[in-house]
This record gives sequence, structure tokens and C-alpha cells, in this order.
Amino acid sequence: MTEQPRVTAEHTADKRLRERARAVIPGGMYGHQSTALLPGAYPQFMRGGRGARIWDVDGNEYIDLMCSYGPVVLGHQHPRVEEAAAAQAALGDCQNAPGPVMVDLAELLVRTVRHADWAMFAKNGTDATTMCCTIARARTGRRKILVATGAYHGAAPWCTPRPAGVTPQDRENLGYYTYNDMESVRQAAAAAGDDLAGILVSPFKHDAGYDQELVDPGFARGLRALCDETGAALILDDVRCGFRLHLGSSWEPVGVAPDLSAWSKAIANGHALAAVLGNDAFRDGARQLFVTGSFWFSAVSMAAAIATITALAEERAVEAMERSGAELRDGILAQAHSWDLPISYTGPDVMPYLSFAGDEDHRLGDVFAEHALRGGVYLHPRHNWFVSAAMTGDDIARALEATDRAFAAVRKQIGN
Amino acid sequence: MTEQPRVTAEHTADKRLRERARAVIPGGMYGHQSTALLPGAYPQFMRGGRGARIWDVDGNEYIDLMCSYGPVVLGHQHPRVEEAAAAQAALGDCQNAPGPVMVDLAELLVRTVRHADWAMFAKNGTDATTMCCTIARARTGRRKILVATGAYHGAAPWCTPRPAGVTPQDRENLGYYTYNDMESVRQAAAAAGDDLAGILVSPFKHDAGYDQELVDPGFARGLRALCDETGAALILDDVRCGFRLHLGSSWEPVGVAPDLSAWSKAIANGHALAAVLGNDAFRDGARQLFVTGSFWFSAVSMAAAIATITALAEERAVEAMERSGAELRDGILAQAHSWDLPISYTGPDVMPYLSFAGDEDHRLGDVFAEHALRGGVYLHPRHNWFVSAAMTGDDIARALEATDRAFAAVRKQIGN
Repeated sequence: MTEQPRVTAEHTADKRLRERARAVIPGGMYGHQSTALLPGAYPQFMRGGRGARIWDVDGNEYIDLMCSYGPVVLGHQHPRVEEAAAAQAALGDCQNAPGPVMVDLAELLVRTVRHADWAMFAKNGTDATTMCCTIARARTGRRKILVATGAYHGAAPWCTPRPAGVTPQDRENLGYYTYNDMESVRQAAAAAGDDLAGILVSPFKHDAGYDQELVDPGFARGLRALCDETGAALILDDVRCGFRLHLGSSWEPVGVAPDLSAWSKAIANGHALAAVLGNDAFRDGARQLFVTGSFWFSAVSMAAAIATITALAEERAVEAMERSGAELRDGILAQAHSWDLPISYTGPDVMPYLSFAGDEDHRLGDVFAEHALRGGVYLHPRHNWFVSAAMTGDDIARALEATDRAFAAVRKQIGN
Repeated sequence: MTEQPRVTAEHTADKRLRERARAVIPGGMYGHQSTALLPGAYPQFMRGGRGARIWDVDGNEYIDLMCSYGPVVLGHQHPRVEEAAAAQAALGDCQNAPGPVMVDLAELLVRTVRHADWAMFAKNGTDATTMCCTIARARTGRRKILVATGAYHGAAPWCTPRPAGVTPQDRENLGYYTYNDMESVRQAAAAAGDDLAGILVSPFKHDAGYDQELVDPGFARGLRALCDETGAALILDDVRCGFRLHLGSSWEPVGVAPDLSAWSKAIANGHALAAVLGNDAFRDGARQLFVTGSFWFSAVSMAAAIATITALAEERAVEAMERSGAELRDGILAQAHSWDLPISYTGPDVMPYLSFAGDEDHRLGDVFAEHALRGGVYLHPRHNWFVSAAMTGDDIARALEATDRAFAAVRKQIGN
């Protein structure tokens, strides 16, 4: 795990796979894991990973600063998680009914997440955000859900960022506000009138391609007060941030409790699971829904989630990520300064986003990312990065060697 | 695997788990795996399974005629599938990009399913049916999708059978027809006018709680012709039936090719995976969508799917299920006759549905199911059963011993 990342191989296997994929997958790939918008050096296919190191199909090794876009939080192939998953798999996974681990996990989540009195499980973050909206509507008998303009809450027709195949009716019951702007929320709430079912909000503003913005605690408290006043549900979309900032919910440090929260990604360190957590006021609304899926009761990902949450707590993973994230931030900021490159480095240290001043078309970001990748660190030019608890001081040091060369390349691109 | 099923233990562990679940899961359980509508003897929690045998948390053993509501097709813990999954898990599962198995699987599906030119993957059957509708809309620029009244196509707001939290707008772009009634389709299509994007249809009528109805080949051909005429997409929802009736699509024996098809359940013998398959005419529509999920590119379930589809073909699983299904049918029909109980036994032999004449409130069905369960066979009083390829002649014989006692109980309930 401590050797130098090697990025020497040609992308021969990757190119061959891309050609084959073009024939049998529309556009060659789709969704957030398509490399269509990434610099050409990025592999479209990965082989595997361990800890903070990952390998592409041509055997190139990278330090992982994307963590599979969030699911990997303890590092790849975390032994306790994989052992728990394998032990459960040897018994049963997808059965005629859930396994006992479903109750164990629901209890663990209710103990761990302060605002939660109950839990439901699903497979996608989108399942969880959609269920939150439906529960809010079932409980209130109202229709309108307010969302921040530009926020990502999933890829179903009501929320996908691309309009292909989406009908106006899919979004007719949404209202829009500006993140951290309470006045805009009040206006949207007023427009919804007595039809306001809920307000959906991310723990901080993490719209892909834009500088991030931490939540103004006054804004969070303002949303809570407005929901208390109107009876609407305050819904926290903790899919991307959950279990990275605070085990008890990403707004626990802010001191604001949502009514409902959506979770997925890091909850089982890469095993497919999502959850909706809620308080007692919304329990009956949740009970009324018929929501389900063929694999929603599968036991393996639930066993993996129990092991993940337990390890996160016992290994003090949030603190570890914060230390690594701070070290990375300090290094990056110092490098940018030394290369005289004005950058923004925004968001929590454990989920940072880097952009270059004036780089609206991401041209410099792409140069940076491509050279970082060639130097052996896998990060993203248009999406926040993720620091896992598996990163060692050595990983950070080597990642910073790569980013220093990447800054040099940007410097060269701009000229002196 | 050959011993007699034992149902002797009290449901002590199950009762304890139910009590704990009531505190932390709304209603104690939700979705299709809630036992709320099942007779009291049914366990809410299962321990595991192997082949065609399953165990509840109190150690009772049952012959499995539900197959986890469809996902298990080769039997529980199929060695080739689990070995392939474990081998992939040792490399990587949820990564920054898909593994090579994604291309292998897409190619295998395109080779196996005759109407498919391309594949996309997701996690839920509902993801797949929703994507099919969205692709149809993206390709046609129209909005209306026709569905059969009472058909189940998933549990998102646009399709869940229970209206809690669902808004009128969620269903504003649906039109309704009667299964196997071409005239009703023509009327619904006429109502949609030039806004008809697609027709969604199940391979046969398998609405839970009702006698099943095989597709009239003329109806299937009529839908195809109407779609050809109007440019709408013919969408086959093969989520429940896929890989049980014919590996090349459930309408391959009927000779009708859909434009798009939705798959999940049996595709990876219990591992969480869904797929959309489509023809070249709809490839560009599919390419336009932004659809994705945190675990949609995970490699383990794809490796399991390759092993499943390969084993289904090599082990001639469809033929095996047909043989077992025919044996079960013959046995059940003979028993019903011998007990002088008028029943309907409908649908394909491998996915049969049993009902008693005049039993609208399912009271007799519940008596039958409860006694079958106590006799060691896990079947369902309000949902079609599933025959897996793991069933041996011994399993069928012992299942029939249990159903004979269950018919006796129904006879006793009615009186002579």
C-alpha cells in the first residue's frame, strides 16, 4: 500500500473496452460514471481497489480522491465490512423476507442519527429522496416541495438535471429557492401557499461544477422555523454527505434537526443501500406508502452497513478524514500560492472542490485534473472530491506530489 | 437437501424481532415483504436458504415456492453465481468507473435477448420501467404512456398501487387499457392522439390477487402493429418474468419483439441489478437521458448476472423449471379434484397462481397457504408462485404432501 502510484501503462485495455461498449451501451456509457466530460487520460473502466489505492484495467495505480463518488468512506475492501458482508452472504441475501440484520440496522441508525425515530431502506439515493417527498405529501395531504435551484437530488424524471424525456408534469409540484437565501424560500413558500408539503435541502451547496458553499446556520434554522410554522416537512438530502461530516446527520453540528432525511452512498462503504430516516411526526405518513423493490430487503448490504457504521465510530473515521482533509487543503493552498495561481478551494475539507479563478469553461480544471491523474491521483475537475478514512500520511504526501506537478502544468498552460 | 422440511419450532425469535421492528420501522415492515396481509403463521424474518430449501429465524425449514418474489431462479446460493460474485468482490465492486464485466454483460444480453441491440443497468425493476418510459418520451418527444389497468410496474409515485403521497400530476401522462383487449388499447391510443409515447405491457397478466391470464398472441401482435403505425415504443415489462419463460425475452415464444424491455429480479439470481434493453431505433433516445445511481455501475452484481445467465443456458434451467412446474401443476390439480375443491390454477406452470372458486376475500386461500406453510412449503395466497431450477423431484413430492394437507384443511373449513 505504500509504494509510489504508477501510471505508466498505455490505456490499451481501456480503449478496447470502450470500443466494445460503444456497440452495446448507448453513447458508450451513461450517468455520472461516463468519462465523456473528463479529460482523455481518464480510464472509463476500473479494475479494483484497496484502501486508498485503486487500479484501472491497464494496471495503472492511483490514490483515490473520488471514493466511487462517495460510497467508499472507510477505503476500498475494508476488512470488517467485507467480512460482515461475506458472513451474511453465506447465510442469505435476497430472501422471501428480510433478515434480522434489518432490525439491527434500523436500531443502530435510530441510536446514531439524532433526529431519527425510524428507518426504511431502499437501493438508490434517488429512492430515498423520492420517498421523503412522498412521505411529506402523504403526511400533509399537500403537494408542493421546494428545492434549491441547481441542486442535485437524484436522477428520476422529477429531479434529473437533464430534461430529455421529462414532462412538465414531472416537476409541476416543485418550487424553487436559492440556497442560503431565506427570503427566496419565503417567496417560494408563499407561492405554494397552503399546498406546501416539504422543503428539500442539501447539508451544504455542492452543485457539481460550481464552488461549494457551506450552510449558513441561520438559513438552516430559518428553514426549520418555517416548516414548524407551516407543518411542512424539513427534508435533509444527506445522500452525498452522510457519514462523512458527522455520524449523527450532517446538520448535527449546525444544531438543526430535519423531519426526514435521505441517505445512501457511504452508508455501507460501497454496498448498494439507501435509507430514509424520520421522526415520529412523520411515522404514520411513512406507514401509508407502498414503496418497495426486489432487493430492498436484501441482508448483505445491511450487514455491510452495520459493519460500516460501527467501524466509522470505533475507528474515529470522521476525525481521521478531517485530519487528512486538512492536510490536503493546506498542501493544495500552499502549492497554488507558490505557483501564483488564484484558486477557490471550497466546501468541507473532507469533500473539497477546487476551481481556478475565471475558469468558467473548466479548461484549467481539466489540465489540472489530467496532470494529477498522470501523476497518480484520481480526482475530478467538475465534482467535489472525497477523502476516505483509509488515506495515510504517505497517501496525502504522494497525492500532493501529483497535484504540485498538476499546478505546474496549469501554470505552463497560462504562461508566466 | 433431501430431508423432510421441519416446521416445529415456535416463532419465538420472529416475534421478538417483530416487536423490535415495530419500534424502528413504520408499521413494523413495509412493501411486498411485509407479512401484514399473510396468515399469522408466516415468519416476518428469514435466516437463509440453499437450493430450494429456506429457513426462518426460528430454524423452521420450507421448500421455497416464492423464490424471494422472483429474484432466485437457479436456487439459493447457487455455487457458480456466488463464486463469480465473490471473485469480483475480491477485486472491486463500486468504483470510480464500471468494471470490464459491464461490457461483458451488455454483450451477453445483446446476444441472448433477440430484440436487444444495447443495454443499460440500474438497481430496481422500477428504475428500469421508469427509464423505458423516459426513453420512449425522449425519442418521440411525446408524453403519454398506456398501461393496463391494475398492472404492477413498480412502486414509484407514477406506478405504485397505493395512492398515499401520490399527486394527480404523477399520473397525468398515463392512459389505461384492459389487458388482452385490443379495442381498449385503440381507444386509449386515440385519446392520447399525437402525444402517444409508448405502450407498457407485461408478458402476461399477473396482477397480484387475481387469476392470471396468458397473453393472446393476437393482442401482442396488435400492440406491435399499433406502435409501428404511431411511432410509439412497445415496452415489455419483463421484470417479474424475465429469464423464467424464455432467455430471449418472455415474448420470444409469442414472436413479438418490443422496442424496449425492463428487466430485474432473476437477472443475477438475487444480486441487486436491473437492466433496460432496447433496439437501435431507441438507442439515441436512451443516450440523451441522464440516469444514474451510486451503485448502478457496481461490478459484483454484473459478474453474478453473467454467471446466472450462463448457468441458466448451460444447465437448461428453463426446461428444468417447466418440468418441475408441470409436475407441481399435475399434482395440485389432482389433489384439488380428489378433495372436490373447484380451483383456478392460472398462468405459466413456472409462475402459477392458485385461487379457490368464489374466494373473493381470499379466506380459503389463506387457509390453504397457512396449512401449506405449516406442512413445510412456502407459497403465497395472493401472489403468483415461482418455481426455481433447483427444485428436485423430491422437493416437488414433499411440497405436494404439504399441499394435500392444505387442501384437506380447506375442505374441512368449507365442510362437506
